[in-house]
Amino acid sequence: MSMQITKIAQQARKASRVAATLSPSQKNELLRAMADQLLEQKTAIQKANQKDLKQAEKKKLSVAMIDRLRLTDKVIAEMAQGLREVAELPDPVGQVVTQWTRPNGLQVSRVRIPLGVIGIIYESRPNVTVDAAGLCLKSGNAVVLRGGSEAIHSNLLLGKLLRKVLEASKFDPHMIQVIPTTDREAMKALVQQVKYIDLMIPRGGSQLMEWMMKHSKVPVVKHDKGVCHVYVDEAADLKMAEEIILNAKAQRPGVCNAAETLLVHERIAPNFLPQAAKRLMERGIELRGDPLTKKLVPQAKKATEQDWGTEYLDLILAVRVVPNLEAAIAHIQKYGSLHTETIVTEDTAHAEIFINRLDSSGVFWNCSTRFNDGGQLGLGAEIGISTTKIHAFGPMGLEELTTMKFVVKGNGQVRT
Amino acid sequence: MSMQITKIAQQARKASRVAATLSPSQKNELLRAMADQLLEQKTAIQKANQKDLKQAEKKKLSVAMIDRLRLTDKVIAEMAQGLREVAELPDPVGQVVTQWTRPNGLQVSRVRIPLGVIGIIYESRPNVTVDAAGLCLKSGNAVVLRGGSEAIHSNLLLGKLLRKVLEASKFDPHMIQVIPTTDREAMKALVQQVKYIDLMIPRGGSQLMEWMMKHSKVPVVKHDKGVCHVYVDEAADLKMAEEIILNAKAQRPGVCNAAETLLVHERIAPNFLPQAAKRLMERGIELRGDPLTKKLVPQAKKATEQDWGTEYLDLILAVRVVPNLEAAIAHIQKYGSLHTETIVTEDTAHAEIFINRLDSSGVFWNCSTRFNDGGQLGLGAEIGISTTKIHAFGPMGLEELTTMKFVVKGNGQVRT
Repeated sequence: MSMQITKIAQQARKASRVAATLSPSQKNELLRAMADQLLEQKTAIQKANQKDLKQAEKKKLSVAMIDRLRLTDKVIAEMAQGLREVAELPDPVGQVVTQWTRPNGLQVSRVRIPLGVIGIIYESRPNVTVDAAGLCLKSGNAVVLRGGSEAIHSNLLLGKLLRKVLEASKFDPHMIQVIPTTDREAMKALVQQVKYIDLMIPRGGSQLMEWMMKHSKVPVVKHDKGVCHVYVDEAADLKMAEEIILNAKAQRPGVCNAAETLLVHERIAPNFLPQAAKRLMERGIELRGDPLTKKLVPQAKKATEQDWGTEYLDLILAVRVVPNLEAAIAHIQKYGSLHTETIVTEDTAHAEIFINRLDSSGVFWNCSTRFNDGGQLGLGAEIGISTTKIHAFGPMGLEELTTMKFVVKGNGQVRT
Repeated sequence: MSMQITKIAQQARKASRVAATLSPSQKNELLRAMADQLLEQKTAIQKANQKDLKQAEKKKLSVAMIDRLRLTDKVIAEMAQGLREVAELPDPVGQVVTQWTRPNGLQVSRVRIPLGVIGIIYESRPNVTVDAAGLCLKSGNAVVLRGGSEAIHSNLLLGKLLRKVLEASKFDPHMIQVIPTTDREAMKALVQQVKYIDLMIPRGGSQLMEWMMKHSKVPVVKHDKGVCHVYVDEAADLKMAEEIILNAKAQRPGVCNAAETLLVHERIAPNFLPQAAKRLMERGIELRGDPLTKKLVPQAKKATEQDWGTEYLDLILAVRVVPNLEAAIAHIQKYGSLHTETIVTEDTAHAEIFINRLDSSGVFWNCSTRFNDGGQLGLGAEIGISTTKIHAFGPMGLEELTTMKFVVKGNGQVRT
């Protein structure tokens, strides 16, 4: 198995040389042909997907998990549409980001190039196979995909269909490869391929992140948890604050940019919390509060130390009353996961302190945490949201799947 | 020891919150005061340095190594001058790199922030202690420095002097810390501090790089070897090519951006190689050639497979005659280390193929490989030259010691 993985990685490296030299129109044509291919092969895709679904039922996976696994007509149409949208995005490869001339006449420029080979490890939803392959192709990279065991039949067929399009156009099909097994030994072999893989992107829970830190020799950009905070300042517009925390917590609780903790300035807590809590509870949200919160909202459960810092991904919200802005910042620095924090305030000075002092990937003022997303922020599409500070912090779009080289043109300059 | 290292890392994390909020003028004043401090304490520095030098003589280190260790008046003056120059550079922190407005009115910007805590592992030259500390301070980071055992007395005193300046200004002195021991267990504990350290930068030989890959859980940007190539194309200006290879190989053979392999197009090899070889040999360079080179330069030794891909850092040059540009590119892709490659040619189309096809951190046309250096390219100063594609590829200046966060300003927007 380890040898098979090495071969896959080697083939990816070789194919990455091809991927890097494809023209924008070649890549866009491939992406559109892949979209067509998915729609044409809908029946075959759903047949493969059925195998995964049957297995999932046998294994008694949760309804939510089975739902994420299911490739309905709508999901297949969305995957195809996603590829078409990526085709429309500007091509990052070859972009001259900056240039200048040195006193000795050397013309220096920094030019975007693909990273080379990207390995992606993900769980459950098989549409990631197509989304990730599309973004990697557009950014001129080869990709090695390793999905979860529960989606293996769907993932393998999707990979095969995308490769068919590459083959039909006489391009090296190893630009897109799906690892044919999900055993841990194969995954371990994958993250050792430092000669052939430039970056590993793990998307999943904390167990996967721990595992990656322990085993990966290839550089890793983690897409880890989001313990996102909403801080309602003493100078907040309380109606706005109510809408923002409702949206941040309840619009889609199972995603990483949903809020997990609400911090409220003590001066406005009596005016804000009872009414906000009522609306949150009407939406089925369980509240877990500190003693001051519990005084104002008796229905709240008691929050334990463990609650601060927990990513519930569920209809639960931790609530704490804080004496001031400083205490809110200190709480976020202590318990946060560097994902997304929002301050609700009409006081510009307070907002600026919050924005300057916090070093999360998204620091927001008067809007929902749910906007920390590549599509919402205008990056076009994203491969995920990085919580690693280096390389790419926050939503990773096409540019974040590239690096820059220095191109220097001279006329015989040497160093003296 | 492991507990002591954890404490150092924790203190660095705490101090990094202070470093991140220092104003440009506060940082520049500190840097200038540090420069003064070094000059004032010259005698004390040289006394500490004497201990290292005595130990080095006892251990019979090479003359070159002892030379790198020695803190002469000139080296101390250069360290101080280096700090003053860093003070003059533009401050990257808080820089708004791009901004745009979304259709829903959200104002999105990407703002540079410090990475947080940077760990640097380096060997031999104690001036790295001061250079690295200055760059990390200017970029708003806290730094944990781990130098080599041969320079421990010098490094500890230099660290102490820089910290004195922080203390005198009532800032948290833990912004700059030198690990007080060089044992491997301490280093192992250091690279496990994922909670407190954001980036490890190792500078050194391949053994250190291997060790880092094996042990570090903190993200690593490697400053690894440079197997740099000069390719003399069939359309080269042969006089220019001669000057470039002489400079690239002989001007300072012990550094990573010196050339290690010369590739020559077969059509011009008979005109170019004998004369170039003569001049290289006059400079004391030993040539190791493939059979075609040996035919034209009988004095050349025979190159083995091992020679391609070796970073000599010495007065040795591998030489190969290649049938065409494609073969030159293939050679570099196979044996290179992604550091620096130069093509010498008057043919723009050839230069463009070379530039587009190679993915090294520096791809140069008609100039010496020796220009792949932060100072030479105009970045101002560098902490080293990264050979890792992610985060920073090539010379790492102040900007590369930062990351970007998304700052988003709204007026109550929520997701629908």
